[in-house]
Amino acid sequence: MHYLELVKERAPLIHNITNQVVMNVTANGLYALGASPLMAHEKEEMDDIINISDALVLNIGTITEPVFQAMQVAGRKAQEKGIPIVLDPVGVGASNYRMRVVTHLLETLKISFIRGNAAEIMTLVSLKQAGKGVEGDIDTDVGTIARAFYRRYRIPVVVTGKEDMIYSGKTLYRLKNGSPILKQVTGTGCLLTSVIAAFLAVADDDHYIEAAAEAVSFYTVASEVAAERSELPGSFQMHFIDCLATLSISEWKKQAVIEVSS
Amino acid sequence: MHYLELVKERAPLIHNITNQVVMNVTANGLYALGASPLMAHEKEEMDDIINISDALVLNIGTITEPVFQAMQVAGRKAQEKGIPIVLDPVGVGASNYRMRVVTHLLETLKISFIRGNAAEIMTLVSLKQAGKGVEGDIDTDVGTIARAFYRRYRIPVVVTGKEDMIYSGKTLYRLKNGSPILKQVTGTGCLLTSVIAAFLAVADDDHYIEAAAEAVSFYTVASEVAAERSELPGSFQMHFIDCLATLSISEWKKQAVIEVSS
Amino acid sequence: MHYLELVKERAPLIHNITNQVVMNVTANGLYALGASPLMAHEKEEMDDIINISDALVLNIGTITEPVFQAMQVAGRKAQEKGIPIVLDPVGVGASNYRMRVVTHLLETLKISFIRGNAAEIMTLVSLKQAGKGVEGDIDTDVGTIARAFYRRYRIPVVVTGKEDMIYSGKTLYRLKNGSPILKQVTGTGCLLTSVIAAFLAVADDDHYIEAAAEAVSFYTVASEVAAERSELPGSFQMHFIDCLATLSISEWKKQAVIEVSS
Repeated sequence: MHYLELVKERAPLIHNITNQVVMNVTANGLYALGASPLMAHEKEEMDDIINISDALVLNIGTITEPVFQAMQVAGRKAQEKGIPIVLDPVGVGASNYRMRVVTHLLETLKISFIRGNAAEIMTLVSLKQAGKGVEGDIDTDVGTIARAFYRRYRIPVVVTGKEDMIYSGKTLYRLKNGSPILKQVTGTGCLLTSVIAAFLAVADDDHYIEAAAEAVSFYTVASEVAAERSELPGSFQMHFIDCLATLSISEWKKQAVIEVSS
Repeated sequence: MHYLELVKERAPLIHNITNQVVMNVTANGLYALGASPLMAHEKEEMDDIINISDALVLNIGTITEPVFQAMQVAGRKAQEKGIPIVLDPVGVGASNYRMRVVTHLLETLKISFIRGNAAEIMTLVSLKQAGKGVEGDIDTDVGTIARAFYRRYRIPVVVTGKEDMIYSGKTLYRLKNGSPILKQVTGTGCLLTSVIAAFLAVADDDHYIEAAAEAVSFYTVASEVAAERSELPGSFQMHFIDCLATLSISEWKKQAVIEVSS
Repeated sequence: MHYLELVKERAPLIHNITNQVVMNVTANGLYALGASPLMAHEKEEMDDIINISDALVLNIGTITEPVFQAMQVAGRKAQEKGIPIVLDPVGVGASNYRMRVVTHLLETLKISFIRGNAAEIMTLVSLKQAGKGVEGDIDTDVGTIARAFYRRYRIPVVVTGKEDMIYSGKTLYRLKNGSPILKQVTGTGCLLTSVIAAFLAVADDDHYIEAAAEAVSFYTVASEVAAERSELPGSFQMHFIDCLATLSISEWKKQAVIEVSS
């Protein structure tokens, strides 16, 4: 059975401590997939919220001190409970504050997966600010960046870009789908992070990498199908949510291009 | 004259202290209807804001301590001024913190109407957590839940679900419209709460229940018309806003199914 | 070369300290235009963020104390660095708190441009609350309001309404484009403020007024093209983002109506 089917069957509750720009599209994207979104960031309720959650997303896009504190409480509890924690280091190169937040989370929590673009992951490897803002292409091969990140932190990593790389120490997945329009629509990276969390939520610990690969593959193929309907950013955003809800496993698999190497 | 016409004529200012996931769609939905949305949550300005507002919405979806404090100031002032206060206990079963927040608001303010799904209202009746996250179906008949809530709190209640129940101690309205797609789009419950507030804003105190029934009926019929255009969540969201703006009273009334019993 | 082309070529990073209602549409609108959006409001990181930014937007729509503090840090740093600062006094007439926030920003920072509707700018001129909430038409001629504002504060101003006025002490630009539907969709004023910031980011200081005029003209013509596709608010919002991405300079210039007087 595919992880996608398990998501639709079990409707895992994904708790997103995420940024204010993408909350709406994240909730709608998770619903479209069949998962249940939850957003909360009052420290006081984090323990209870994690108690009913099946995965935790930590996204630093508009991080503030109170939200960082909520992340730490939620992270500790999620780790204790054994549910997956997925980290999105949005724009980590934009400030020393973000760098401190992300390295603290990486060092104190057992992060199941990190998902970032090449500039973000590169910044974490080199520990110096690279790239402006929240996007940015990098010349270095993304596979090299993924390996370097893993070597340093021993945390499984998804690096998204023209090609998407997934690495957790053994197998390197190189995924070749995805419309370039994704880069022109805000929140598409953040939503992918939450979609990965939904797939991990229905997978066993020792199959997280396969679940993450399926999540990225499904998501990027859906973006290609949506882009066939419209290549304009406003319309694309609408069609993309539709496609996340309707893309069948057979259509997805027909279009998916995944290379696996060690 | 219908309350909907009064909303369009008077454009009541609806002050929403609401969650970060739905602010945009709430503002657009209220505009589509002809009302004026306002969102603010700095405690310092709550008195002034209520001074110019025609109704207050308290929605705990992403509640934090500072926002809870703003709600209390705004609530006291709204009660003093005599404008309707509508409460949405989003995901109240998700944490003890939310339960404390909601019961505090219910006990210290004269809430005009509460609007929640069956799981949320059930949680408040039984005072134990029921259902995960912010949605969830419940087996108990929703009419029974509505009556039980009213018996306990003496606060008029809208319980939404496959059928929507409205009860304020005498008449039970059972509304049978609404597309199932509403459940797949985030914020559709929250927006309904704000739409109810807009209808109450133009009604006399002793006709709040009729105004609430008209609000729910109009809203759910609009969802059916939108679903005829598209049953996919991304497209539906767009058409739904369009339909809230354009659905005529005659079209609405033709499709509306309301049963009234005592 | 047009400022629009420079925006597309340089993709200036626009840092928006803005309200929670419009963050998503602001990010998508800036992307559509070719600019790079960034949203952040933790005081701790404001210096670093401004270091990589090309313009700063201060929008008080859902202002709170912590965000106001972040604005002050960011504003001082932006002024020091010499990048444009654009202020949007959303609903300044709604509370004394907002009035204090806006006058503090106007008095302590070198604001490059303020952008508001007639009611908001009028409120700042008369220093008394005018109009309810965040919109509102005013009888006084908007050109008169623009001149009065400049006389008082010596800060260049864009007043939007049926006609849009731009004034910086010498030339009065009167722009006659723009669909009335803009008023029914939340965030269209706020996004314009951010679009003005993007145009200023690629202009020399002594050509800010021309850049602002081009921004308003392009934006309002795009709204007319979008309104030709749909005059319903949900659909319009989608088409508008599409049009911001695709409207060509020749189409824009063909439709633009600008009167210049001294």
